[in-house]
Amino acid sequence: MPRMHIGIVGLGRMGANMRQRLRNHDLEVTGYDPNPEVSDVASLAALVETLPAGRRAVWVMVPAGDVTRGVVTELADLLAEGDIVIEGGNSHFLDDRKHAEQLAERGIRYVDVGVSGGVWGLENGYGLMAGGEKDDVEHLMPVFDALRPPGERANGFVHAGAIGAGHYAKMVHNGIEYGLMQAYAEGYELLEAQEIVTDVTGTLKAWTQGTVVRSWLLDLLVAALEEDPQLGSIDDYVEDSGEGRWTVDEAIDQAVPLPVISAALFARFSSRQVDSPAMKAVAALRQQFGGHAVRPAGDA
Amino acid sequence: MPRMHIGIVGLGRMGANMRQRLRNHDLEVTGYDPNPEVSDVASLAALVETLPAGRRAVWVMVPAGDVTRGVVTELADLLAEGDIVIEGGNSHFLDDRKHAEQLAERGIRYVDVGVSGGVWGLENGYGLMAGGEKDDVEHLMPVFDALRPPGERANGFVHAGAIGAGHYAKMVHNGIEYGLMQAYAEGYELLEAQEIVTDVTGTLKAWTQGTVVRSWLLDLLVAALEEDPQLGSIDDYVEDSGEGRWTVDEAIDQAVPLPVISAALFARFSSRQVDSPAMKAVAALRQQFGGHAVRPAGDA
Amino acid sequence: MPRMHIGIVGLGRMGANMRQRLRNHDLEVTGYDPNPEVSDVASLAALVETLPAGRRAVWVMVPAGDVTRGVVTELADLLAEGDIVIEGGNSHFLDDRKHAEQLAERGIRYVDVGVSGGVWGLENGYGLMAGGEKDDVEHLMPVFDALRPPGERANGFVHAGAIGAGHYAKMVHNGIEYGLMQAYAEGYELLEAQEIVTDVTGTLKAWTQGTVVRSWLLDLLVAALEEDPQLGSIDDYVEDSGEGRWTVDEAIDQAVPLPVISAALFARFSSRQVDSPAMKAVAALRQQFGGHAVRPAGDA
Amino acid sequence: MPRMHIGIVGLGRMGANMRQRLRNHDLEVTGYDPNPEVSDVASLAALVETLPAGRRAVWVMVPAGDVTRGVVTELADLLAEGDIVIEGGNSHFLDDRKHAEQLAERGIRYVDVGVSGGVWGLENGYGLMAGGEKDDVEHLMPVFDALRPPGERANGFVHAGAIGAGHYAKMVHNGIEYGLMQAYAEGYELLEAQEIVTDVTGTLKAWTQGTVVRSWLLDLLVAALEEDPQLGSIDDYVEDSGEGRWTVDEAIDQAVPLPVISAALFARFSSRQVDSPAMKAVAALRQQFGGHAVRPAGDA
Repeated sequence: MPRMHIGIVGLGRMGANMRQRLRNHDLEVTGYDPNPEVSDVASLAALVETLPAGRRAVWVMVPAGDVTRGVVTELADLLAEGDIVIEGGNSHFLDDRKHAEQLAERGIRYVDVGVSGGVWGLENGYGLMAGGEKDDVEHLMPVFDALRPPGERANGFVHAGAIGAGHYAKMVHNGIEYGLMQAYAEGYELLEAQEIVTDVTGTLKAWTQGTVVRSWLLDLLVAALEEDPQLGSIDDYVEDSGEGRWTVDEAIDQAVPLPVISAALFARFSSRQVDSPAMKAVAALRQQFGGHAVRPAGDA
Repeated sequence: MPRMHIGIVGLGRMGANMRQRLRNHDLEVTGYDPNPEVSDVASLAALVETLPAGRRAVWVMVPAGDVTRGVVTELADLLAEGDIVIEGGNSHFLDDRKHAEQLAERGIRYVDVGVSGGVWGLENGYGLMAGGEKDDVEHLMPVFDALRPPGERANGFVHAGAIGAGHYAKMVHNGIEYGLMQAYAEGYELLEAQEIVTDVTGTLKAWTQGTVVRSWLLDLLVAALEEDPQLGSIDDYVEDSGEGRWTVDEAIDQAVPLPVISAALFARFSSRQVDSPAMKAVAALRQQFGGHAVRPAGDA
Repeated sequence: MPRMHIGIVGLGRMGANMRQRLRNHDLEVTGYDPNPEVSDVASLAALVETLPAGRRAVWVMVPAGDVTRGVVTELADLLAEGDIVIEGGNSHFLDDRKHAEQLAERGIRYVDVGVSGGVWGLENGYGLMAGGEKDDVEHLMPVFDALRPPGERANGFVHAGAIGAGHYAKMVHNGIEYGLMQAYAEGYELLEAQEIVTDVTGTLKAWTQGTVVRSWLLDLLVAALEEDPQLGSIDDYVEDSGEGRWTVDEAIDQAVPLPVISAALFARFSSRQVDSPAMKAVAALRQQFGGHAVRPAGDA
Repeated sequence: MPRMHIGIVGLGRMGANMRQRLRNHDLEVTGYDPNPEVSDVASLAALVETLPAGRRAVWVMVPAGDVTRGVVTELADLLAEGDIVIEGGNSHFLDDRKHAEQLAERGIRYVDVGVSGGVWGLENGYGLMAGGEKDDVEHLMPVFDALRPPGERANGFVHAGAIGAGHYAKMVHNGIEYGLMQAYAEGYELLEAQEIVTDVTGTLKAWTQGTVVRSWLLDLLVAALEEDPQLGSIDDYVEDSGEGRWTVDEAIDQAVPLPVISAALFARFSSRQVDSPAMKAVAALRQQFGGHAVRPAGDA
């Protein structure tokens, strides 16, 4: 059996690393990116042409939303019946259904894959959650096996359900991630605030083996603190990629209480505010009823 | 029956207003404060001497903690068996028990009173929650009736229980107050953030009559917004007086979940932080696993 | 000037009360409801026919979603250019825009009104928040003035902005309402749990005048406790009408942190669960790492 | 150099496992427990007598609070100047100071150690956080090295600071643990609630390698789900050991916001309630203002 040859669209940090990992595992990969410095071919059409006929597979790894929609639309023209588009970005699971319907009009198959692991996936393998038809997922197993961590397939890969299930699983994964990060961060802040534990970084490091809280995120937090004790070079400003928001939105639709995950999301919103209108209002109220002094704006 | 004559120790904003309201209601009041400009007498001893013999009553209205403890200790020497100390400040309910025990050694009675109403109490009357023996509370009813709002006694006054109950009730009152203020503040912030409702102050003002959310706090928020639209002159920095902390501590002891009141408390803590170590940690983690850009510290 | 005559569709508790209040204020009202026992006319078409020609106004007061959509669609056929549909139910502000567009195709005007006050509005007047064109809102002022509480118009009525603004304001109002209710409820629970304050209902009642936390909701809570001390007849099961969910969804879209309002929403979700899968998972984890005993399911 | 010989008091699950692990690493251990079936000696006095003279070390591993206090008091009599008591249980860090003072009167040394790892520590090693004097901690390193996981000492052991620092670190560790567990639990509940991801256990299992959320707790959750899909045999009732409460109390003292950790703590409180007085109050309020139907108590 000839080795598999797939296309990848989008060679940013994630896409380029995945191309590399696939090649390291002896798959043939043609990558396309608008940036000619990293692209293997000059156009998406050229990429499709390099793929061997018969059930061609193109992995899309571009920003969610308009860009992904645009690539899917182009691929709907370039690919043919039986070919497969794999959406490996961070699409919303409802968008997966739209993509799949659009492609299905041309007989093109669709698989959505949630990919976790960040910049470390190249080395360690990526955790993968796939959604789609069983037959399509099975066809792509050589790709998934190359990308996922070594060892048992079930640790690092799941066929989570029908179309959308891969990104649904990834969305929840990210919601959990918000909660985990915030839990460590709160504990870290308390340790920084007090004066009894004098070796804060050493304490977190001691937790990395043997304890109940050991995890990969903890390893990363220790690495960050070893690079930059007290994180003096980092601003307390935290973006959110959207998947935490979707998780809370979805939980609200399902009437599932998410006190921890939502608190973690809101902490990020707050971190980005220069001024909190809510806290101005609370300060104003205290002044109104109690004659409590307020701090004039700008007086830090 | 001669009109009642009581002493007040502490003539800050609250104490001075209460002296005034009592006088407005035809009680005789002698006030003592270290500040001679507001004090009626030169010393605490002098205050005690002005009071008619037999069940003398001294209302303590000084900062909770050391200052209150000091005044109670002085009064233990100055007063005699059967006299009453009324602690109207914001003592913790466990401190009430200590004060009462200390005074009981000399046969002096103790009543704790939670007082709500802020600077508006002079005009509107104060909501009062008393803790102590029935006989002592009844003896003081002329004082309480003068201080509370007019109308039904039960709306504005309660004998909540034994010693400590008045401040316990006030503590919970303040915990609720934190939650209420934060609820309005969050709604206000959402209205400020969006662009569909264009008359935000007018909307809050419309809520002051007829709606489910009408309240005195809402009236105050509208007043604040009418004075200073968008609260531009006020910093988003909110102190806490300690009673919200005690409420959450006590709820934890009682295993009572307080998600809203604790969230309101934590929002105040966050409002006072120049830098959030927790959010630095979250930013550092995102950088570690995702290569997500962080904002360098100081780069606002 | 002849007195105004408007139509109302939907004569449930809210609609019937509003018809009554309008009539009490000398407006002419024709009401239609599928239930012939409360309806003034036999059909929506018949209702429209009763209205005097020229800028006819029909107030829609039916369940949000499909029912409202259906009535709007019918009215699009029955009304004519220049007539006004007032949507007084709990539509989402984005649905207002759809309704308005649908009606605009026929030249029919649209005003959305958030109405607060519950069953007490008949007697006290309703708080009203209107969205729409200035000219339409002004035309309807006799209706709004009859429905709102007496006194200053600005306390009880606002023209909050363009179409959708009335329901947007009402949505935020309800989000705040969730937070306020939960704040009182948490304080009440803490008072019920402890043993120092022995007169819990009396304490809440004392708060109704003079204190910082006085409000209409507090009055209602006291009324409920006076009817049923310890609320023994009431289940701890709380529905949500949807507007709290929308508030949190919208805040997430706007990146506004709502820790208190979301906590109140989640408390309702939790209140309706027979079993919490999340807490089963936590119990299972404790058993896994600590050998902590778990309580077998069903063993209450 | 002769191999180290220490005493352990308390041979419950944790103590017995630790005795075993120390013996597996060639330390000599005498254990005492009131239960003669597991005890090596008949009394605490007998245990002390078995230890070689000169800097005797006794590890206390009994329930925090009164029991620990009792053992420390007995050891104050039995041990002599220069001996060391190691408190390895879950004492509060303020109790450590009291223990240390009590022992210091007799010249006995004190080291507090937070121990994490649960029933798996016997096999994997325990994460250890020590508080105390440098000289004492160094003397005990053979014990700590035997108990901690193999590999780098800094991964699994820290001398966190002066007396109390070990238990302070463990307290924060447990607070974080609450937050982590709740984050996974919320994600799990959302997955259980929805219908798009059809292989929930498989999804969690796929996360155990390569993903950002991989951790030991996740491994345990997967193990629990593989034993009992949907956790049908487990009640949603979660105890708390007290250290989460201490973490929140301490954060409140330090004015550190802990929205996630406190939410996790409160979720446990709620999980143990048969009835929520707070949610009864919210239901009662809705009935009061809206005529919303309430569910009568007992009508599940």
